[in-house]
Amino acid sequence: MKNLIVASTSTIYGSGYLEYLEEVLVKHFKNTNEILFIPFARPSGISHDTYTEKAATFFHKINKKLVGIHTFENPIEAIKNAKGIFTGGGNTFLLVKKMHDLKLMAPLREMLLEGTPYLGTSAGSNLCGVTMQNTNDMPIVYPPSFKTLGVIPFNINAHFLDPSPTKHMGETRETRIKEYHTQNTVPVVGLREGSWLEVKGENITLKGHLSARVFEQAKEAYEVEKLTKLTF
Amino acid sequence: MKNLIVASTSTIYGSGYLEYLEEVLVKHFKNTNEILFIPFARPSGISHDTYTEKAATFFHKINKKLVGIHTFENPIEAIKNAKGIFTGGGNTFLLVKKMHDLKLMAPLREMLLEGTPYLGTSAGSNLCGVTMQNTNDMPIVYPPSFKTLGVIPFNINAHFLDPSPTKHMGETRETRIKEYHTQNTVPVVGLREGSWLEVKGENITLKGHLSARVFEQAKEAYEVEKLTKLTF
Repeated sequence: MKNLIVASTSTIYGSGYLEYLEEVLVKHFKNTNEILFIPFARPSGISHDTYTEKAATFFHKINKKLVGIHTFENPIEAIKNAKGIFTGGGNTFLLVKKMHDLKLMAPLREMLLEGTPYLGTSAGSNLCGVTMQNTNDMPIVYPPSFKTLGVIPFNINAHFLDPSPTKHMGETRETRIKEYHTQNTVPVVGLREGSWLEVKGENITLKGHLSARVFEQAKEAYEVEKLTKLTF
Repeated sequence: MKNLIVASTSTIYGSGYLEYLEEVLVKHFKNTNEILFIPFARPSGISHDTYTEKAATFFHKINKKLVGIHTFENPIEAIKNAKGIFTGGGNTFLLVKKMHDLKLMAPLREMLLEGTPYLGTSAGSNLCGVTMQNTNDMPIVYPPSFKTLGVIPFNINAHFLDPSPTKHMGETRETRIKEYHTQNTVPVVGLREGSWLEVKGENITLKGHLSARVFEQAKEAYEVEKLTKLTF
């Protein structure tokens, strides 16, 4: 049974890395002391080691050891042996390219379908969708495919932002997602910072204090309130 | 001799479509009454016809006939016969995919190297760079390659925005371009709305009232003032 936390962001304004999720993560990873970390999204281009250290500092506080997948000789085996997995944010193109290049998509998908607890933040949440096509990131590398894990039946738009009421800021997120739906049928959930999806088997529940915005092809976008179960 | 206008945007705040460039375009296209329009970027997903009508309305005012490339049976021939070419903005992924699928990159490049006057705005300006990898757009389709025309020796970041001094808005444009330079060596010019590059042969001059921000690998980003000649 799938057991995923799919979070918009790792860090909410004015609080430390993953702090807002601390209680949730203590429960989520209660059956393991060691978590496999996938650092391939490399936010701001930091190294896999530096990124792993940063994430490990948080997990150390809740008595978990975090180990970077880049330290294993055989990353496929590392995934198959993992008792908990966390994919951090950064650049989604980098992450998805590396996952395809190392042939990690299929084994990771299999582990998540079998129930290994998973945490994704930002790019690591985009990875859970059907494709990465609703990322906000810059295409700094060319992945062999935009396909992702498909462990949820829609795509994520992480760090979802409402249009600024006072400022001319170019295209809104909504405009971009509408463009997406001229070419694609997969629904998109715009997750605001501080929101996450709790996925337990086929039940997907919106958590956090905020509503989320849902985009379906040929429909007006609509809000869903916290604690809503998302079904399409 | 190359003869290009590479503009950040088609429309500046408070003014009509292409209005701010009117005088420049009258001169730029003085030797032709007919301009070939490439509408493949389809802003907000509008049809090729609707987009062509919109652009034609502006060009009609300066006594030019605009013809959409999608109305030709043989678009390669249309490019080879064009006396002036305009590629409009929208989604860069859509534009680049269509250009590759129809095998239009090579003939367009050849025409621009031979001196056919070209106007690009936004996605149509990204098309002039070495790759499309500094687009701000959402990857709504998967192009067979991120390579673009390479008629300028750097990439464009169109609609370049400075970080908001008062608001937490997530990653800045600068952060994203820095990430790009952890993986790539091609320089990037951040063109603010209202700025354009005038390309005459190998001379590339920054036009408009604003400065531009230049990003080179392993260097601090820096400003260049209007009328600067860009060389790398």
